[in-house]
Amino acid sequence: MQEGTQATTTLAAGRAGTRTGPRIGQRTIAFSSRPRIAATAAVGGPMEGDGPLGRLLDVVYQDSLLGEKSWELAETRMLCEAVELAADKAGLAVGDVDMLVAGDLLNEIIASSFAARHLDIPFLGIFGACSALTEAIGIAAMAVDGGYARRAIAAVCSHHDTAERQYRYPTELAVQRPPTAQWTVTGAGAVVITAGDNDGDTGGSGEYRGDDDARPRITHATFGRVVDMGIKNPFDLGSAMAPAAADTIRRHLADLQVGPDHYDLILTGDLSRVGLPIAMELLAEDGLDVSGVMDDCGLRVYHPEQEVGAGASGCASSALVFAAQVFRDLQEGRIGRLLLVSTGALLSKTSAHQGENIPGIAHAIAMEAPGAGKERGR
Amino acid sequence: MQEGTQATTTLAAGRAGTRTGPRIGQRTIAFSSRPRIAATAAVGGPMEGDGPLGRLLDVVYQDSLLGEKSWELAETRMLCEAVELAADKAGLAVGDVDMLVAGDLLNEIIASSFAARHLDIPFLGIFGACSALTEAIGIAAMAVDGGYARRAIAAVCSHHDTAERQYRYPTELAVQRPPTAQWTVTGAGAVVITAGDNDGDTGGSGEYRGDDDARPRITHATFGRVVDMGIKNPFDLGSAMAPAAADTIRRHLADLQVGPDHYDLILTGDLSRVGLPIAMELLAEDGLDVSGVMDDCGLRVYHPEQEVGAGASGCASSALVFAAQVFRDLQEGRIGRLLLVSTGALLSKTSAHQGENIPGIAHAIAMEAPGAGKERGR
Repeated sequence: MQEGTQATTTLAAGRAGTRTGPRIGQRTIAFSSRPRIAATAAVGGPMEGDGPLGRLLDVVYQDSLLGEKSWELAETRMLCEAVELAADKAGLAVGDVDMLVAGDLLNEIIASSFAARHLDIPFLGIFGACSALTEAIGIAAMAVDGGYARRAIAAVCSHHDTAERQYRYPTELAVQRPPTAQWTVTGAGAVVITAGDNDGDTGGSGEYRGDDDARPRITHATFGRVVDMGIKNPFDLGSAMAPAAADTIRRHLADLQVGPDHYDLILTGDLSRVGLPIAMELLAEDGLDVSGVMDDCGLRVYHPEQEVGAGASGCASSALVFAAQVFRDLQEGRIGRLLLVSTGALLSKTSAHQGENIPGIAHAIAMEAPGAGKERGR
Repeated sequence: MQEGTQATTTLAAGRAGTRTGPRIGQRTIAFSSRPRIAATAAVGGPMEGDGPLGRLLDVVYQDSLLGEKSWELAETRMLCEAVELAADKAGLAVGDVDMLVAGDLLNEIIASSFAARHLDIPFLGIFGACSALTEAIGIAAMAVDGGYARRAIAAVCSHHDTAERQYRYPTELAVQRPPTAQWTVTGAGAVVITAGDNDGDTGGSGEYRGDDDARPRITHATFGRVVDMGIKNPFDLGSAMAPAAADTIRRHLADLQVGPDHYDLILTGDLSRVGLPIAMELLAEDGLDVSGVMDDCGLRVYHPEQEVGAGASGCASSALVFAAQVFRDLQEGRIGRLLLVSTGALLSKTSAHQGENIPGIAHAIAMEAPGAGKERGR
């Protein structure tokens, strides 16, 4: 009702697409300008360097302290370096960037806050646990698509040794871990988002009109709700996050009125070996067969022989896989359409000690290879 | 350069104002649709009920546990109730709201995350320490102004007893506090933001065209950078935040090319008795005399005889003062133009123990009374 009224007013003022165009379905945003991903950067620690992404990372540090006095300072420096590298690859100085949207796993996101102090640009700190990457990309894409920022950087980091002692036990104890536990990725990733098309409204149901450069585009965002399925085990976060991932993917596909095969890849953040089959099963129960297109970043960071339990986790799980690997696949056309769904488990030491459940959240960002929409429509 | 190019393209497509219009100066966003603040709600604990805001709060709880098992659950419930009350006052069901942007002071913002689980709408979790209110309003206003959300709620909370034990000492110890220390407000505030004008671009240098309802409008946002002046004392956060407040206010006024008296009130979040004079002094050094227009929310929550040290702090400091008191002043025309500048001190127990400084951040949101711009222009 209100939409109809607004659309009329908007059209009358010659600003079609700016009020109601951006929303499709119940929950999904269609970015009418299709912001560009100008560049990404990813840095990682020694274990990440030894893994399948090793040769794709921009920097592999030889030790997880990076020569700093604390793991927290090391984590902060990784985030700074990822942001600086990404800006540089996009041909920008950090000072040219209007907005940094960043988060991490630490209490009071001190890695991001302290990195922002060094980077010295307007800073929006976020917390979405391991869903931070797609939350940050979504906010940054709104800012760029709406013209509130000409250039924005979405960035996240995590560090195995800071997360381990904050959420579980003192790192030096080397407590034995059950097989459902995941290994927090040591690394940081940054995504530079710049203005997209201004030549017409290609959002929602619009047709892709082609573009003259080779940057992948951000087409849609679906922000998730918090979903609680009663999981209480902090060593099984994959199960805690799977229902949220399924919920967001289901709503996204319904809003676009497409099936899973609309995407070449639906890539969750860190469900890993335990959570991924649960999410796929939940989607199958809703008649959505994702078996041919779904994968999880948590299964792409380490080799099986690296013995990381159920797989990778942490904000840097989806950040390293996206920024180092999948962004290249998009840019070089090996993937036409991507739905990236970073997944977060919402707990603190306090909430766990107080016997609270561990709810999950997942935010989905749809992206396209340069020219991908051209031959395929929406 | 790029701006010029974009403006031409944009005008050609008949969408003037959507790309470059929203940015003025170096750092400031001008919201072309001037989103409405449809309603606010504020709830507080017993001490807040005894203070000057007491009779203005929507709910005053008789004890700080609210009958819950833990202070954390009490804090979560306060946030839920503030959001539900604000939605109700705006004539909305919570389910009608497209986006909740919320944060608090707790590790992993569990109060906000658990409130979002109950409220069951798309959730963007933020962390900006006590700057959370204006960070949340800024993100929500971008979302509504850009058409990405029809209605959004920005909400924050804090609780004296959860903050005390998390950041300082076990609450039950009742450790003696130095006079520079502030008292974390127990309360929650919520701000409902709905679509503004669609009848022309009134952002940036545009003239106000009047509107036919009595809702205050959000006109500008200036997101701050992290500023570090070398403060290390966690019992003197006012001093830590004052430079960030001054930095953001200075940049905001420069971007708008106006003096401090453009505003009837420049209201910081929780600088309190120690930090406010420092911020005013820093602005005076830049030739900005704010003595007639500047005040701090931290001085408005408690009576002097309540013995809260230097004043109030916490996300709920600016939330309670804005949502319960200043919003009414705007709505009823006692204030024409407001610059609200929530201020955050960025520290964690870990960063403090590791000897790190406590940097600050501040985000500014400009608002106008209904019709305020009409007679005054910009």
